[in-house]
Amino acid sequence: MGRVTRNHPVVRIGPGAATRRVDTLAVEEPLEIRLAGESFLVTMRTPGDDVDLVHGLLHSEDLIECGADLVSARYCLGTGPDGLNTYNVIDVALAPHRPPPSAAQRRQVMTSSACGICGTTTIDQVVQTSRHPLNPDFRVPAELILAAPDLLRDHQRAFAKTGGLHAAGLLGLDGVMACVREDVGRHNAVDKVVGWAIREDRLPLAEMILVVSGRASFELTQKAVLAGIPVMAAVSAPSSLAAELASESGLTLAGFVRGQTMNVYAHPERIVTPAPGAADTSRSVGEISTLRSPS
Amino acid sequence: MGRVTRNHPVVRIGPGAATRRVDTLAVEEPLEIRLAGESFLVTMRTPGDDVDLVHGLLHSEDLIECGADLVSARYCLGTGPDGLNTYNVIDVALAPHRPPPSAAQRRQVMTSSACGICGTTTIDQVVQTSRHPLNPDFRVPAELILAAPDLLRDHQRAFAKTGGLHAAGLLGLDGVMACVREDVGRHNAVDKVVGWAIREDRLPLAEMILVVSGRASFELTQKAVLAGIPVMAAVSAPSSLAAELASESGLTLAGFVRGQTMNVYAHPERIVTPAPGAADTSRSVGEISTLRSPS
Repeated sequence: MGRVTRNHPVVRIGPGAATRRVDTLAVEEPLEIRLAGESFLVTMRTPGDDVDLVHGLLHSEDLIECGADLVSARYCLGTGPDGLNTYNVIDVALAPHRPPPSAAQRRQVMTSSACGICGTTTIDQVVQTSRHPLNPDFRVPAELILAAPDLLRDHQRAFAKTGGLHAAGLLGLDGVMACVREDVGRHNAVDKVVGWAIREDRLPLAEMILVVSGRASFELTQKAVLAGIPVMAAVSAPSSLAAELASESGLTLAGFVRGQTMNVYAHPERIVTPAPGAADTSRSVGEISTLRSPS
Repeated sequence: MGRVTRNHPVVRIGPGAATRRVDTLAVEEPLEIRLAGESFLVTMRTPGDDVDLVHGLLHSEDLIECGADLVSARYCLGTGPDGLNTYNVIDVALAPHRPPPSAAQRRQVMTSSACGICGTTTIDQVVQTSRHPLNPDFRVPAELILAAPDLLRDHQRAFAKTGGLHAAGLLGLDGVMACVREDVGRHNAVDKVVGWAIREDRLPLAEMILVVSGRASFELTQKAVLAGIPVMAAVSAPSSLAAELASESGLTLAGFVRGQTMNVYAHPERIVTPAPGAADTSRSVGEISTLRSPS
Protein backbone atom coordinates (compact mmCIF):
# COMPACT_ATOMS: atom_id res chain seq x y z
CA MET A 1 0.00 0.00 0.00
CA GLY A 2 3.06 2.26 -0.23
CA ARG A 3 1.79 3.44 -3.61
CA VAL A 4 -1.21 5.39 -2.30
CA THR A 5 0.89 8.46 -1.65
CA ARG A 6 4.19 9.64 -3.10
CA ASN A 7 6.60 12.40 -2.08
CA HIS A 8 7.32 15.15 -4.58
CA PRO A 9 9.68 18.16 -4.25
CA VAL A 10 7.95 21.54 -4.37
CA VAL A 11 8.78 25.21 -4.12
CA ARG A 12 6.45 26.90 -1.67
CA ILE A 13 5.96 30.54 -2.54
CA GLY A 14 4.70 32.73 0.26
CA PRO A 15 4.91 36.41 1.12
CA GLY A 16 8.48 37.45 0.35
CA ALA A 17 9.95 33.97 0.35
CA ALA A 18 10.25 30.86 -1.77
CA THR A 19 11.31 27.73 0.06
CA ARG A 20 11.96 24.15 -0.91
CA ARG A 21 10.02 21.40 0.74
CA VAL A 22 8.62 17.96 0.07
CA ASP A 23 4.90 17.51 -0.46
CA THR A 24 2.93 14.26 -0.28
CA LEU A 25 0.78 13.62 -3.34
CA ALA A 26 -2.02 11.14 -3.98
CA VAL A 27 -0.79 8.56 -6.45
CA GLU A 28 -2.66 8.33 -9.77
CA GLU A 29 -1.84 5.45 -12.14
CA PRO A 30 -3.71 3.87 -15.06
CA LEU A 31 -5.42 0.52 -14.48
CA GLU A 32 -6.23 -1.53 -17.54
CA ILE A 33 -8.95 -4.13 -17.14
CA ARG A 34 -8.88 -7.00 -19.62
CA LEU A 35 -11.64 -9.53 -20.13
CA ALA A 36 -10.27 -12.94 -21.15
CA GLY A 37 -7.12 -11.23 -22.38
CA GLU A 38 -8.83 -8.52 -24.41
CA SER A 39 -8.57 -4.91 -23.30
CA PHE A 40 -11.91 -3.66 -21.94
CA LEU A 41 -11.14 -0.28 -20.41
CA VAL A 42 -8.51 1.87 -18.75
CA THR A 43 -9.30 3.97 -15.69
CA MET A 44 -7.02 6.37 -13.83
CA ARG A 45 -7.04 5.32 -10.20
CA THR A 46 -5.10 5.31 -6.95
CA PRO A 47 -3.47 1.87 -6.61
CA GLY A 48 -4.80 -0.37 -3.86
CA ASP A 49 -7.97 -2.47 -3.56
CA ASP A 50 -7.83 -3.00 -7.30
CA VAL A 51 -9.81 -6.23 -7.10
CA ASP A 52 -12.60 -4.39 -5.28
CA LEU A 53 -12.45 -1.73 -7.98
CA VAL A 54 -12.76 -4.33 -10.73
CA HIS A 55 -15.78 -5.94 -9.07
CA GLY A 56 -17.55 -2.62 -8.53
CA LEU A 57 -16.79 -1.30 -11.98
CA LEU A 58 -17.92 -4.43 -13.80
CA HIS A 59 -21.08 -4.38 -11.67
CA SER A 60 -21.79 -0.79 -12.72
CA GLU A 61 -21.27 -1.84 -16.33
CA ASP A 62 -23.82 -4.63 -15.80
CA LEU A 63 -21.31 -7.39 -16.56
CA ILE A 64 -21.55 -9.09 -13.15
CA GLU A 65 -24.28 -9.33 -10.52
CA CYS A 66 -22.45 -11.11 -7.71
CA GLY A 67 -19.03 -12.40 -6.77
CA ALA A 68 -19.70 -15.80 -8.34
CA ASP A 69 -20.01 -14.14 -11.75
CA LEU A 70 -16.31 -13.35 -11.67
CA VAL A 71 -14.07 -16.42 -11.61
CA SER A 72 -10.70 -14.68 -11.27
CA ALA A 73 -9.01 -11.28 -11.41
CA ARG A 74 -5.23 -11.48 -11.66
CA TYR A 75 -2.47 -8.98 -12.34
CA CYS A 76 -0.84 -9.72 -15.67
CA LEU A 77 2.81 -10.67 -15.40
CA GLY A 78 5.57 -8.81 -17.16
CA THR A 79 3.54 -5.99 -18.61
CA GLY A 80 6.07 -3.18 -18.14
CA PRO A 81 8.67 -2.06 -20.69
CA ASP A 82 11.31 -3.67 -18.45
CA GLY A 83 9.38 -6.92 -18.19
CA LEU A 84 8.58 -6.32 -14.53
CA ASN A 85 5.05 -6.36 -13.18
CA THR A 86 3.49 -2.89 -13.10
CA TYR A 87 0.42 -4.08 -11.17
CA ASN A 88 -1.51 -1.84 -13.54
CA VAL A 89 -3.06 -4.52 -15.76
CA ILE A 90 -5.66 -6.98 -14.45
CA ASP A 91 -7.07 -9.84 -16.46
CA VAL A 92 -10.58 -10.93 -15.51
CA ALA A 93 -12.24 -14.25 -16.26
CA LEU A 94 -16.03 -14.06 -16.13
CA ALA A 95 -18.03 -17.16 -15.23
CA PRO A 96 -19.10 -19.24 -18.25
CA HIS A 97 -22.75 -18.27 -17.68
CA ARG A 98 -21.94 -14.56 -18.01
CA PRO A 99 -21.91 -13.39 -21.61
CA PRO A 100 -18.98 -11.19 -22.66
CA PRO A 101 -19.79 -7.52 -23.22
CA SER A 102 -21.72 -6.67 -26.34
CA ALA A 103 -20.32 -4.24 -28.87
CA ALA A 104 -22.70 -1.64 -27.44
CA GLN A 105 -21.43 -2.27 -23.91
CA ARG A 106 -17.85 -1.91 -25.11
CA ARG A 107 -18.70 1.31 -26.86
CA GLN A 108 -20.65 2.84 -24.01
CA VAL A 109 -18.22 1.83 -21.31
CA MET A 110 -17.35 4.58 -18.81
CA THR A 111 -20.32 6.58 -19.92
CA SER A 112 -22.60 5.35 -17.18
CA SER A 113 -25.26 3.97 -19.48
CA ALA A 114 -26.13 7.47 -20.63
CA CYS A 115 -27.58 7.37 -24.11
CA GLY A 116 -27.24 10.98 -25.14
CA ILE A 117 -30.93 11.41 -25.85
CA CYS A 118 -31.92 13.14 -22.65
CA GLY A 119 -31.75 12.88 -18.91
CA THR A 120 -35.17 11.25 -18.61
CA THR A 121 -34.24 8.43 -20.95
CA THR A 122 -30.95 7.97 -19.13
CA ILE A 123 -32.80 7.68 -15.82
CA ASP A 124 -35.23 5.16 -17.31
CA GLN A 125 -32.30 3.02 -18.40
CA VAL A 126 -30.88 2.92 -14.87
CA VAL A 127 -34.24 2.13 -13.29
CA GLN A 128 -34.79 -0.69 -15.78
CA THR A 129 -31.30 -2.10 -15.28
CA SER A 130 -31.52 -2.11 -11.49
CA ARG A 131 -32.18 -5.51 -9.98
CA HIS A 132 -32.72 -4.32 -6.42
CA PRO A 133 -35.80 -2.33 -5.34
CA LEU A 134 -34.61 0.14 -2.73
CA ASN A 135 -35.69 -0.89 0.78
CA PRO A 136 -38.84 1.20 1.51
CA ASP A 137 -38.83 0.36 5.23
CA PHE A 138 -35.30 1.50 5.99
CA ARG A 139 -35.20 4.41 8.46
CA VAL A 140 -32.17 6.48 9.50
CA PRO A 141 -31.89 8.97 12.35
CA ALA A 142 -31.03 12.42 11.04
CA GLU A 143 -28.20 12.63 13.60
CA LEU A 144 -26.47 9.64 12.02
CA ILE A 145 -26.44 11.27 8.59
CA LEU A 146 -25.23 14.53 10.08
CA ALA A 147 -22.38 12.63 11.75
CA ALA A 148 -21.46 10.73 8.57
CA PRO A 149 -18.93 13.21 7.08
CA ASP A 150 -16.91 13.21 10.31
CA LEU A 151 -17.07 9.41 10.52
CA LEU A 152 -15.80 9.26 6.93
CA ARG A 153 -13.02 11.75 7.56
CA ASP A 154 -11.79 9.71 10.51
CA HIS A 155 -10.92 7.00 7.97
CA GLN A 156 -9.40 9.26 5.32
CA ARG A 157 -5.78 8.61 6.10
CA ALA A 158 -4.40 9.48 2.70
CA PHE A 159 -6.53 12.61 2.36
CA ALA A 160 -5.12 13.91 5.62
CA LYS A 161 -1.66 13.68 4.07
CA THR A 162 -2.40 14.86 0.55
CA GLY A 163 -5.66 16.82 0.45
CA GLY A 164 -6.11 15.20 -2.94
CA LEU A 165 -8.31 12.15 -2.53
CA HIS A 166 -12.01 11.49 -2.69
CA ALA A 167 -13.56 8.97 -0.32
CA ALA A 168 -16.62 6.78 -0.16
CA GLY A 169 -17.91 4.80 2.81
CA LEU A 170 -20.65 2.35 3.68
CA LEU A 171 -22.22 3.36 7.00
CA GLY A 172 -24.46 1.05 9.00
CA LEU A 173 -27.19 1.97 11.48
CA ASP A 174 -24.78 1.00 14.26
CA GLY A 175 -22.68 4.05 13.35
CA VAL A 176 -19.82 1.90 12.08
CA MET A 177 -18.22 2.38 8.68
CA ALA A 178 -18.27 -1.13 7.21
CA CYS A 179 -15.91 -0.13 4.40
CA VAL A 180 -14.10 3.08 3.40
CA ARG A 181 -12.03 3.57 0.26
CA GLU A 182 -10.04 6.55 -1.02
CA ASP A 183 -9.15 7.32 -4.62
CA VAL A 184 -8.19 10.24 -6.88
CA GLY A 185 -11.37 9.40 -8.82
CA ARG A 186 -14.59 9.68 -6.85
CA HIS A 187 -16.27 7.09 -9.10
CA ASN A 188 -13.44 4.68 -8.28
CA ALA A 189 -13.93 5.22 -4.54
CA VAL A 190 -17.59 4.24 -4.88
CA ASP A 191 -16.76 1.30 -7.17
CA LYS A 192 -14.28 0.08 -4.56
CA VAL A 193 -16.77 0.03 -1.67
CA VAL A 194 -19.47 -1.57 -3.81
CA GLY A 195 -16.91 -4.06 -5.12
CA TRP A 196 -15.94 -4.90 -1.55
CA ALA A 197 -19.60 -5.59 -0.77
CA ILE A 198 -19.96 -7.79 -3.86
CA ARG A 199 -16.97 -9.86 -2.78
CA GLU A 200 -18.47 -10.13 0.72
CA ASP A 201 -21.75 -11.25 -0.86
CA ARG A 202 -23.62 -8.35 0.76
CA LEU A 203 -25.65 -7.08 -2.21
CA PRO A 204 -28.23 -5.58 -2.10
CA LEU A 205 -26.95 -3.15 0.52
CA ALA A 206 -30.49 -2.68 1.80
CA GLU A 207 -29.51 -1.28 5.20
CA MET A 208 -26.51 0.85 4.35
CA ILE A 209 -25.87 4.55 3.79
CA LEU A 210 -23.42 5.50 1.06
CA VAL A 211 -21.35 8.49 2.19
CA VAL A 212 -19.30 10.43 -0.36
CA SER A 213 -16.77 13.17 0.37
CA GLY A 214 -17.70 15.51 -2.46
CA ARG A 215 -20.51 16.16 -4.88
CA ALA A 216 -23.21 13.73 -5.96
CA SER A 217 -23.09 13.30 -9.73
CA PHE A 218 -25.43 11.21 -11.82
CA GLU A 219 -22.75 8.54 -12.09
CA LEU A 220 -22.28 8.12 -8.32
CA THR A 221 -26.02 8.12 -7.69
CA GLN A 222 -26.45 5.46 -10.37
CA LYS A 223 -23.90 3.23 -8.64
CA ALA A 224 -25.81 3.53 -5.35
CA VAL A 225 -29.11 2.61 -7.02
CA LEU A 226 -27.60 -0.39 -8.83
CA ALA A 227 -26.15 -1.69 -5.54
CA GLY A 228 -29.53 -1.45 -3.82
CA ILE A 229 -28.39 1.25 -1.38
CA PRO A 230 -31.45 3.16 -0.06
CA VAL A 231 -29.73 6.29 1.34
CA MET A 232 -26.89 8.42 0.00
CA ALA A 233 -25.26 11.35 1.80
CA ALA A 234 -22.93 13.79 0.05
CA VAL A 235 -20.85 16.53 1.63
CA SER A 236 -21.42 18.83 -1.34
CA ALA A 237 -24.05 19.56 -3.98
CA PRO A 238 -25.87 17.06 -6.17
CA SER A 239 -26.38 17.68 -9.86
CA SER A 240 -29.87 18.05 -11.32
CA LEU A 241 -29.72 14.60 -12.89
CA ALA A 242 -28.57 13.00 -9.62
CA ALA A 243 -31.53 14.53 -7.79
CA GLU A 244 -33.93 13.43 -10.54
CA LEU A 245 -32.55 9.89 -10.62
CA ALA A 246 -32.92 9.70 -6.82
CA SER A 247 -36.53 10.86 -7.04
CA GLU A 248 -37.43 8.38 -9.78
CA SER A 249 -35.61 5.38 -8.35
CA GLY A 250 -36.68 5.76 -4.73
CA LEU A 251 -33.27 6.77 -3.34
CA THR A 252 -33.04 9.10 -0.35
CA LEU A 253 -30.45 11.71 -1.37
CA ALA A 254 -28.99 14.16 1.15
CA GLY A 255 -26.52 16.86 0.09
CA PHE A 256 -24.59 19.67 1.76
CA VAL A 257 -24.38 17.50 4.88
CA ARG A 258 -22.40 19.93 7.01
CA GLY A 259 -22.42 20.63 10.71
CA GLN A 260 -25.99 20.52 11.96
CA THR A 261 -27.79 20.85 8.63
CA MET A 262 -28.42 19.00 5.40
CA ASN A 263 -30.62 19.31 2.33
CA VAL A 264 -32.68 16.29 1.30
CA TYR A 265 -33.35 16.24 -2.43
CA ALA A 266 -35.44 13.11 -2.68
CA HIS A 267 -37.37 10.71 -0.46
CA PRO A 268 -36.95 12.37 2.92
CA GLU A 269 -39.39 9.86 4.45
CA ARG A 270 -36.50 7.55 5.41
CA ILE A 271 -34.92 10.22 7.62
CA VAL A 272 -36.17 10.29 11.18
CA THR A 273 -35.92 13.37 13.41
CA PRO A 274 -36.65 13.46 17.14
CA ALA A 275 -40.18 14.60 17.89
CA PRO A 276 -40.08 17.98 19.66
CA GLY A 277 -40.32 17.59 23.44
CA ALA A 278 -40.58 13.82 23.38
CA ALA A 279 -37.74 11.64 24.58
CA ASP A 280 -38.79 8.30 23.17
CA THR A 281 -40.72 9.19 20.09
CA SER A 282 -39.53 10.27 16.72
CA ARG A 283 -41.08 10.95 13.39
CA SER A 284 -39.95 10.56 9.84
CA VAL A 285 -39.37 13.69 7.83
CA GLY A 286 -41.94 12.42 5.39
CA GLU A 287 -44.58 13.02 8.07
CA ILE A 288 -43.32 16.50 8.84
CA SER A 289 -43.05 17.63 5.31
CA THR A 290 -45.53 17.36 2.54
CA LEU A 291 -42.76 17.55 -0.01
CA ARG A 292 -43.31 15.36 -2.98
CA SER A 293 -40.66 14.50 -5.48
CA PRO A 294 -41.26 16.15 -8.83
CA SER A 295 -43.12 13.75 -11.06
CA MET B 1 -28.70 29.34 -21.21
CA GLY B 2 -31.56 28.67 -18.84
CA ARG B 3 -30.46 25.07 -18.65
CA VAL B 4 -27.28 25.69 -16.65
CA THR B 5 -29.16 25.65 -13.36
CA ARG B 6 -32.48 24.14 -12.36
CA ASN B 7 -34.66 24.55 -9.28
CA HIS B 8 -35.42 21.49 -7.20
CA PRO B 9 -37.56 21.18 -4.04
CA VAL B 10 -35.68 20.12 -0.91
CA VAL B 11 -36.29 19.50 2.75
CA ARG B 12 -33.71 21.32 4.82
CA ILE B 13 -33.10 19.54 8.10
CA GLY B 14 -31.54 21.64 10.85
CA PRO B 15 -31.51 21.54 14.63
CA GLY B 16 -35.05 20.75 15.67
CA ALA B 17 -36.70 21.69 12.39
CA ALA B 18 -37.33 20.43 8.90
CA THR B 19 -38.41 23.03 6.39
CA ARG B 20 -39.32 23.03 2.74
CA ARG B 21 -37.42 25.21 0.34
CA VAL B 22 -36.25 25.33 -3.24
CA ASP B 23 -32.60 24.74 -4.07
CA THR B 24 -30.80 25.63 -7.29
CA LEU B 25 -28.89 22.71 -8.81
CA ALA B 26 -26.29 22.58 -11.54
CA VAL B 27 -27.80 20.90 -14.57
CA GLU B 28 -26.19 17.65 -15.73
CA GLU B 29 -27.30 16.12 -19.03
CA PRO B 30 -25.73 13.60 -21.42
CA LEU B 31 -24.16 14.90 -24.61
CA GLU B 32 -23.66 12.40 -27.42
CA ILE B 33 -21.06 13.31 -30.02
CA ARG B 34 -21.45 11.63 -33.39
CA LEU B 35 -18.87 11.62 -36.16
CA ALA B 36 -20.47 11.55 -39.59
CA GLY B 37 -23.61 10.11 -38.04
CA GLU B 38 -21.89 7.38 -36.05
CA SER B 39 -21.91 7.57 -32.26
CA PHE B 40 -18.43 8.39 -30.95
CA LEU B 41 -18.91 9.07 -27.24
CA VAL B 42 -21.31 10.28 -24.57
CA THR B 43 -20.19 12.66 -21.85
CA MET B 44 -22.20 13.98 -18.91
CA ARG B 45 -21.99 17.75 -19.02
CA THR B 46 -23.73 21.00 -18.13
CA PRO B 47 -25.51 22.28 -21.23
CA GLY B 48 -24.11 25.41 -22.82
CA ASP B 49 -21.05 26.06 -24.97
CA ASP B 50 -21.46 22.59 -26.42
CA VAL B 51 -19.65 23.48 -29.63
CA ASP B 52 -16.66 24.65 -27.58
CA LEU B 53 -16.84 21.37 -25.66
CA VAL B 54 -16.86 19.35 -28.88
CA HIS B 55 -13.82 21.19 -30.24
CA GLY B 56 -11.85 20.79 -27.02
CA LEU B 57 -12.78 17.17 -26.53
CA LEU B 58 -11.92 16.14 -30.09
CA HIS B 59 -8.64 18.02 -29.72
CA SER B 60 -7.81 16.07 -26.56
CA GLU B 61 -8.64 12.88 -28.43
CA ASP B 62 -6.19 13.95 -31.16
CA LEU B 63 -8.89 14.03 -33.85
CA ILE B 64 -8.50 17.74 -34.68
CA GLU B 65 -5.61 20.20 -34.46
CA CYS B 66 -7.34 23.45 -35.35
CA GLY B 67 -10.74 24.87 -36.15
CA ALA B 68 -10.35 24.15 -39.87
CA ASP B 69 -10.20 20.43 -39.11
CA LEU B 70 -13.85 20.51 -38.09
CA VAL B 71 -16.23 21.45 -40.89
CA SER B 72 -19.47 21.52 -38.89
CA ALA B 73 -20.99 20.64 -35.53
CA ARG B 74 -24.77 20.63 -35.52
CA TYR B 75 -27.45 19.48 -33.08
CA CYS B 76 -29.33 16.54 -34.53
CA LEU B 77 -32.99 17.23 -35.12
CA GLY B 78 -35.74 15.21 -33.52
CA THR B 79 -33.66 12.97 -31.31
CA GLY B 80 -36.00 12.84 -28.30
CA PRO B 81 -38.68 10.22 -27.67
CA ASP B 82 -41.25 12.91 -28.54
CA GLY B 83 -39.45 13.86 -31.73
CA LEU B 84 -38.43 17.23 -30.34
CA ASN B 85 -34.85 18.38 -30.25
CA THR B 86 -33.13 17.54 -26.98
CA TYR B 87 -30.02 19.55 -27.85
CA ASN B 88 -28.11 16.60 -26.41
CA VAL B 89 -26.86 15.04 -29.65
CA ILE B 90 -24.31 16.78 -31.88
CA ASP B 91 -23.18 15.47 -35.23
CA VAL B 92 -19.69 16.49 -36.31
CA ALA B 93 -18.25 16.51 -39.82
CA LEU B 94 -14.46 16.39 -39.86
CA ALA B 95 -12.57 17.92 -42.75
CA PRO B 96 -11.79 15.46 -45.58
CA HIS B 97 -8.08 15.59 -44.75
CA ARG B 98 -8.72 14.39 -41.17
CA PRO B 99 -8.92 10.62 -40.95
CA PRO B 100 -11.80 9.21 -38.89
CA PRO B 101 -10.85 7.71 -35.54
CA SER B 102 -9.10 4.38 -35.62
CA ALA B 103 -10.53 1.39 -33.82
CA ALA B 104 -7.93 1.99 -31.10
CA GLN B 105 -9.00 5.63 -30.73
CA ARG B 106 -12.61 4.57 -30.46
CA ARG B 107 -11.73 2.01 -27.84
CA GLN B 108 -9.50 4.26 -25.76
CA VAL B 109 -11.78 7.27 -25.90
CA MET B 110 -12.34 9.04 -22.57
CA THR B 111 -9.36 7.28 -21.12
CA SER B 112 -6.98 10.14 -21.74
CA SER B 113 -4.58 8.14 -23.87
CA ALA B 114 -3.58 6.11 -20.83
CA CYS B 115 -2.38 2.69 -21.87
CA GLY B 116 -2.58 0.83 -18.61
CA ILE B 117 1.05 -0.14 -18.62
CA CYS B 118 2.37 2.44 -16.21
CA GLY B 119 2.43 6.13 -15.53
CA THR B 120 5.78 6.65 -17.26
CA THR B 121 4.55 5.14 -20.51
CA THR B 122 1.37 7.19 -20.27
CA ILE B 123 3.42 10.38 -19.88
CA ASP B 124 5.61 9.42 -22.83
CA GLN B 125 2.50 9.08 -24.98
CA VAL B 126 1.32 12.58 -24.11
CA VAL B 127 4.73 14.12 -24.72
CA GLN B 128 4.97 12.39 -28.10
CA THR B 129 1.45 13.42 -29.10
CA SER B 130 1.91 17.07 -28.19
CA ARG B 131 2.49 19.36 -31.15
CA HIS B 132 3.31 22.47 -29.17
CA PRO B 133 6.55 22.85 -27.21
CA LEU B 134 5.68 24.82 -24.08
CA ASN B 135 6.96 28.41 -24.29
CA PRO B 136 10.24 28.41 -22.31
CA ASP B 137 10.45 32.22 -22.20
CA PHE B 138 7.05 32.88 -20.67
CA ARG B 139 7.26 34.52 -17.24
CA VAL B 140 4.43 35.17 -14.77
CA PRO B 141 4.48 37.35 -11.64
CA ALA B 142 3.71 35.25 -8.58
CA GLU B 143 1.08 37.81 -7.56
CA LEU B 144 -0.90 37.13 -10.71
CA ILE B 145 -1.08 33.42 -10.00
CA LEU B 146 -2.03 34.11 -6.38
CA ALA B 147 -4.85 36.35 -7.63
CA ALA B 148 -6.07 33.79 -10.17
CA PRO B 149 -8.57 31.87 -7.97
CA ASP B 150 -10.36 35.10 -7.05
CA LEU B 151 -10.40 36.23 -10.67
CA LEU B 152 -11.91 32.87 -11.63
CA ARG B 153 -14.50 33.00 -8.86
CA ASP B 154 -15.63 36.44 -10.03
CA HIS B 155 -16.82 34.69 -13.21
CA GLN B 156 -18.38 31.64 -11.57
CA ARG B 157 -21.98 32.76 -11.75
CA ALA B 158 -23.53 29.31 -11.67
CA PHE B 159 -21.27 28.09 -8.87
CA ALA B 160 -22.38 30.99 -6.71
CA LYS B 161 -25.93 29.73 -7.06
CA THR B 162 -25.37 25.98 -6.85
CA GLY B 163 -22.04 25.21 -5.19
CA GLY B 164 -21.91 22.35 -7.63
CA LEU B 165 -19.86 23.40 -10.63
CA HIS B 166 -16.21 23.21 -11.57
CA ALA B 167 -14.66 26.05 -13.52
CA ALA B 168 -11.69 26.60 -15.82
CA GLY B 169 -10.33 29.89 -17.09
CA LEU B 170 -7.66 31.20 -19.42
CA LEU B 171 -5.82 34.05 -17.73
CA GLY B 172 -3.57 36.47 -19.63
CA LEU B 173 -0.63 38.50 -18.33
CA ASP B 174 -2.90 41.55 -18.40
CA GLY B 175 -4.88 40.02 -15.54
CA VAL B 176 -7.93 39.47 -17.73
CA MET B 177 -9.73 36.15 -18.00
CA ALA B 178 -9.98 35.61 -21.76
CA CYS B 179 -12.46 32.76 -21.31
CA VAL B 180 -14.17 31.09 -18.34
CA ARG B 181 -16.40 28.04 -18.49
CA GLU B 182 -18.32 26.15 -15.79
CA ASP B 183 -19.42 22.52 -15.87
CA VAL B 184 -20.37 19.67 -13.54
CA GLY B 185 -17.38 17.83 -15.05
CA ARG B 186 -14.02 19.49 -14.52
CA HIS B 187 -12.65 17.88 -17.70
CA ASN B 188 -15.55 19.43 -19.62
CA ALA B 189 -14.77 22.89 -18.22
CA VAL B 190 -11.19 22.61 -19.51
CA ASP B 191 -12.33 21.18 -22.84
CA LYS B 192 -14.70 24.15 -23.22
CA VAL B 193 -12.02 26.81 -22.71
CA VAL B 194 -9.56 25.00 -24.98
CA GLY B 195 -12.33 24.49 -27.53
CA TRP B 196 -13.10 28.20 -27.40
CA ALA B 197 -9.44 28.93 -28.12
CA ILE B 198 -9.41 26.49 -31.04
CA ARG B 199 -12.42 28.20 -32.57
CA GLU B 200 -10.69 31.56 -32.05
CA ASP B 201 -7.59 30.14 -33.76
CA ARG B 202 -5.48 30.89 -30.68
CA LEU B 203 -3.60 27.61 -30.31
CA PRO B 204 -0.94 27.19 -29.02
CA LEU B 205 -1.90 29.19 -25.94
CA ALA B 206 1.75 30.12 -25.43
CA GLU B 207 1.08 33.10 -23.18
CA MET B 208 -1.85 31.90 -21.11
CA ILE B 209 -2.34 30.49 -17.63
CA LEU B 210 -4.92 27.74 -17.22
CA VAL B 211 -6.73 28.20 -13.90
CA VAL B 212 -8.85 25.35 -12.51
CA SER B 213 -11.17 25.52 -9.52
CA GLY B 214 -10.32 22.14 -8.03
CA ARG B 215 -7.66 19.49 -8.16
CA ALA B 216 -5.15 18.91 -10.94
CA SER B 217 -5.57 15.39 -12.28
CA PHE B 218 -3.49 13.76 -14.99
CA GLU B 219 -6.31 14.30 -17.45
CA LEU B 220 -6.55 18.07 -16.90
CA THR B 221 -2.80 18.48 -17.01
CA GLN B 222 -2.69 16.54 -20.25
CA LYS B 223 -5.22 18.89 -21.81
CA ALA B 224 -3.07 21.90 -20.84
CA VAL B 225 0.04 20.35 -22.37
CA LEU B 226 -1.73 19.43 -25.62
CA ALA B 227 -3.03 23.01 -25.96
CA GLY B 228 0.46 24.42 -25.54
CA ILE B 229 -0.37 26.17 -22.25
CA PRO B 230 2.86 26.82 -20.31
CA VAL B 231 1.44 27.48 -16.81
CA MET B 232 -1.37 25.80 -14.88
CA ALA B 233 -2.72 26.90 -11.49
CA ALA B 234 -5.04 24.72 -9.41
CA VAL B 235 -6.86 25.68 -6.23
CA SER B 236 -6.36 22.20 -4.78
CA ALA B 237 -3.87 19.33 -4.90
CA PRO B 238 -2.35 17.75 -7.98
CA SER B 239 -2.06 13.98 -8.31
CA SER B 240 1.33 12.31 -8.55
CA LEU B 241 0.90 11.65 -12.26
CA ALA B 242 -0.13 15.26 -12.93
CA ALA B 243 3.04 16.51 -11.20
CA GLU B 244 5.18 14.00 -13.09
CA LEU B 245 3.61 14.87 -16.45
CA ALA B 246 4.23 18.56 -15.73
CA SER B 247 7.87 17.88 -14.90
CA GLU B 248 8.46 15.82 -18.03
CA SER B 249 6.58 18.03 -20.45
CA GLY B 250 7.91 21.38 -19.27
CA LEU B 251 4.67 22.64 -17.73
CA THR B 252 4.76 24.98 -14.72
CA LEU B 253 2.26 23.47 -12.28
CA ALA B 254 1.10 25.37 -9.19
CA GLY B 255 -1.29 23.80 -6.68
CA PHE B 256 -2.94 24.83 -3.42
CA VAL B 257 -3.07 28.40 -4.73
CA ARG B 258 -4.76 29.96 -1.73
CA GLY B 259 -4.45 33.36 -0.13
CA GLN B 260 -0.81 34.39 -0.17
CA THR B 261 0.78 31.02 -0.80
CA MET B 262 1.08 28.32 -3.43
CA ASN B 263 3.07 25.14 -4.04
CA VAL B 264 4.91 24.80 -7.34
CA TYR B 265 5.31 21.17 -8.35
CA ALA B 266 7.21 21.59 -11.60
CA HIS B 267 9.16 24.25 -13.50
CA PRO B 268 9.06 27.11 -11.02
CA GLU B 269 11.45 29.09 -13.25
CA ARG B 270 8.52 30.73 -15.04
CA ILE B 271 7.26 32.29 -11.82
CA VAL B 272 8.76 35.65 -10.94
CA THR B 273 8.83 37.02 -7.40
CA PRO B 274 9.85 40.55 -6.41
CA ALA B 275 13.48 40.77 -5.37
CA PRO B 276 13.66 41.63 -1.64
CA GLY B 277 14.24 45.34 -1.09
CA ALA B 278 14.25 46.24 -4.75
CA ALA B 279 11.42 48.16 -6.31
CA ASP B 280 12.13 47.61 -9.97
CA THR B 281 13.86 44.26 -10.09
CA SER B 282 12.49 40.82 -9.82
CA ARG B 283 13.84 37.32 -10.10
CA SER B 284 12.46 34.07 -11.28
CA VAL B 285 11.92 31.38 -8.70
CA GLY B 286 14.24 29.20 -10.72
CA GLU B 287 17.09 31.49 -9.63
CA ILE B 288 16.07 31.37 -6.00
CA SER B 289 15.64 27.69 -5.78
CA THR B 290 17.91 24.94 -6.93
CA LEU B 291 14.98 22.60 -7.17
CA ARG B 292 15.19 20.21 -10.06
CA SER B 293 12.32 18.20 -11.35
CA PRO B 294 12.73 14.51 -10.61
CA SER B 295 14.26 12.80 -13.60
